[in-house]
Order: sequence, then structure tokens, then C-alpha cells
Amino acid sequence: MENKYDDPVFFERYGQMARSKEGLAGAGEWETLRAILPDFSGKRVLDLGCGYGWHCAWAADHGAASVLGIDCSRKMLEAAKEKNGRAGVEYRRLSIEEAAFPTGSFDVALSSLALHYVEDLDSVYRRVYQWLSPGGVFVFTAEHPVFTAQGPQDWDYDKEGRIRHFPVDSYFLEGGRQAVFLGEAVRKYHRTLTTYLEGLLGSGFSLLHVQEPQPPASMLGIPGMKDELRRPMMLAVSAWKPERGSA
Amino acid sequence: MENKYDDPVFFERYGQMARSKEGLAGAGEWETLRAILPDFSGKRVLDLGCGYGWHCAWAADHGAASVLGIDCSRKMLEAAKEKNGRAGVEYRRLSIEEAAFPTGSFDVALSSLALHYVEDLDSVYRRVYQWLSPGGVFVFTAEHPVFTAQGPQDWDYDKEGRIRHFPVDSYFLEGGRQAVFLGEAVRKYHRTLTTYLEGLLGSGFSLLHVQEPQPPASMLGIPGMKDELRRPMMLAVSAWKPERGSA
Repeated sequence: MENKYDDPVFFERYGQMARSKEGLAGAGEWETLRAILPDFSGKRVLDLGCGYGWHCAWAADHGAASVLGIDCSRKMLEAAKEKNGRAGVEYRRLSIEEAAFPTGSFDVALSSLALHYVEDLDSVYRRVYQWLSPGGVFVFTAEHPVFTAQGPQDWDYDKEGRIRHFPVDSYFLEGGRQAVFLGEAVRKYHRTLTTYLEGLLGSGFSLLHVQEPQPPASMLGIPGMKDELRRPMMLAVSAWKPERGSA
Repeated sequence: MENKYDDPVFFERYGQMARSKEGLAGAGEWETLRAILPDFSGKRVLDLGCGYGWHCAWAADHGAASVLGIDCSRKMLEAAKEKNGRAGVEYRRLSIEEAAFPTGSFDVALSSLALHYVEDLDSVYRRVYQWLSPGGVFVFTAEHPVFTAQGPQDWDYDKEGRIRHFPVDSYFLEGGRQAVFLGEAVRKYHRTLTTYLEGLLGSGFSLLHVQEPQPPASMLGIPGMKDELRRPMMLAVSAWKPERGSA
């Protein structure tokens, strides 16, 4: 993951987003994600790409025994400590790519909108599977393959500037894409839905949920939000590591 | 499912498609589907919307104890008996919507490119789950939600008639779509990926594979086939009914 978030201008703009100011309540996908989160009581929780730490705080506030949030951005971690510091929550500067923990270190692994910045997804899946205890759960959100396929991540417009539809292209050509996010060029990785899901299944995970979040009715009044019913923007997936001897 | 296939003109056109003339080898998704088919040895097999019966014949030729192919088109079933009649294969005129069998009647259920014609997918999932024996497998292909979302199922073209990209629209508005197939208006049903997969999980199935077929390298020389790398057109899914007591 690039350290774009340590760029002061970018970090400032990120701070103005609803999800940065309002936390989970300001994130359009939160209701969907919350519905597929496991019970955190007594669990050891890892958050990959924790950002401001909203999900770490949620886990701690819902009974987690311990929470470790990792992120590669120093500024993000400073904000996380300030906004979402808790007893039992540790924030550590570490990239998802470099992370390594002993087998069975965690009961729950989370990752919110970070995996599309990671080039080697299979490596993440393999490591998370190993870090989880049997019965452990991995829940993540990532940008939807429909949203990442073409690259620019923008609608197709008519001459009057009205949205015509959302363009999909190069779907089966996986790899890096130059997207624009908060006015800055950001490198993301496109992969197919097949790669997201078969990678989990091939790593030994069993799928619990595959959801495409759509904005809740309560947010449809926000300008532009109704257009989010026209395309899928995110995936929310939960999977578990089967107990030994079960399917 | 409409009986469009009993329209003589439509049926004649369908007969000219590569998949109709060459069978499984003429279907771009076959290599992907074949790789996720279960072992048929000694199995009781049901094919929902069997068409010309290519998959029924494949199952019989690979050791199935019995095969029942159902379809609502009389002409399709006549062609199936002629092209793919086999000892142990029965073809019966019955719609997917009306089909009913005793609990545990089958070990494998197949459906090739038929479910996007069915309005009530959950009803199909519930019934297939009931018809399968514990450990039984359900494998199907259907048109991809990206392909069905907007409706017309056509590319977006520039003024010179070149493909610009594939349009996605109305993704979260599930329901009927008027598509054009072989020059005729055909009613299909769009649903999200969420609906396809969560419906299976919610019915008690455990997911084995979620694949988006892409044309094999050997077919990329066929005119237009390389464009199929630009959008996903189909889903191929396999799932199983867990044995009692396992996950």
C-alpha cells in the first residue's frame, strides 16, 4: 500500500469525508458490514489497514479481549490513537504485505477497504488463514470488481454531463489501475470476483456471506447517493476457517 | 420460462449457434463448467432446463446411474432425444417453476444458462436443496449480473461503431429485463451477485466454486471472442448440501 495517506494534502482531504468525520455511521457500507460481523466477545481481533481505527474501537466496545490495528500510514495511526484509542487496542505501524504473526494468534481478522491496494491477495489469504484459530472468521470489504475493472472509476456521461451508465472494461485483465481518489492519482489493483472468492475457497476458508452493500434508505437523500443503486461499488465478504474434522 | 424455444424461427436460429451444432465443445464456458462438475459415477442426476441434452449425455457417459432432463420446450426435448438420447436418460416436459420431486431424489442437480429465465430463484434453491441427498451437489451457470443489469445486453459503441466499454446500470434494481437474443425480444431476470450467492447460503448450501468463465485461449481467434475478456458474461457456481452434523 502506498503511503499516500501520509501526504498532508491528501490526508487533509481524507479527513473531510463523511466516513472520516462521522466514523462508521458516515460509511455507506456500514449497515451491510455490521450485519455480517461475528460476535466479538472475548475474541482476539486483527484489523488489516485500520485507518482511523473505527472498526478497532467497535470491536473493543463489543467485548473483544484484544485488538491490534495495523496500518502503514503514520498519520492514520496518530489519528486512530486520538479518535479511537481504547484500553485493549494497540495500533502498530505495519503494512499488510509485511505483516507476520504466529499461527493461531487471532480469532477474528477484519479489513475495511484496504485489500484493493494490495497486489498479492493470495498471500494475504494464506497468512490470515494461518493467523486465525480454527473456527476463526475473516471479514473484509473491498472495492467491487465492477468498480475497479476499467480504471478511472467514473461514470460515462452524456454531453449535458448527465450520467449515462457505469463503464466496465478489461474485466479479465487483472492488475494495477491508476484511479483518481480525492484528486490524487492512486494505484489500486483490479481482480475478478472469481479471484476474490476462489482465492478464499482455495485457501481453505468456507464462505459465510458475499454482499454488495447498497446505500441504506436513510442515506438516499444525500446528493448523488441514489446513483449508487445503478452500480455495485463494494464487496463485503465473510468467511471462516473450519474446525479440524468438519467440512 | 417462456416457450420462445417452441417458436419455429427462434428455434431454427438457436440451432445455428456453435453450442447447438457442436455441443459442449462449442460453448465458451464449457471448460470452466467441466472443471467444477462432480464425479457422476453412480449418481442420480437432474438437469433443470436441459435444452438439447448435452449435459445429460455427458453425465450418462460419465457413469451416472440415472439422468432426468426437464425442459418446457417440446422442440428442445425432441432435439435432445434425437441428439442425446441414451440408456438411463429420461427427457420430460416440465418447467423449472413447476418441478416437484420427493426429498432426496437426486445426488447432483445441474442447470445450464436457464436460471436467468426464472423469476423466483429462491424457490428453485429451496426445492433443489430438498431434492438433493445429503452431500449432493448443485452446479449451475447463469448470465452474469454485470451482463443482465442494464437490460439490452449490448456494448456501448463510438460513432465509428467500435466498442467503447460494456454498460452497467440499474444494478440494484432486480427484476425483469427485455433483452434481445437471436433477433427476438426475450424476458430475462436480473439479480445481483448478492442474491445469487446469499440465496444459496441462506438455503443451507455451502459454496464450492464461484467462477466467471472466460473464453479459452483456443477460442480467442474467433471474431469478437477477445472482447469477451472485457466483460464477464456468465457465472458458474457449485455448491453442496452438507451432510447432517457437519458444517
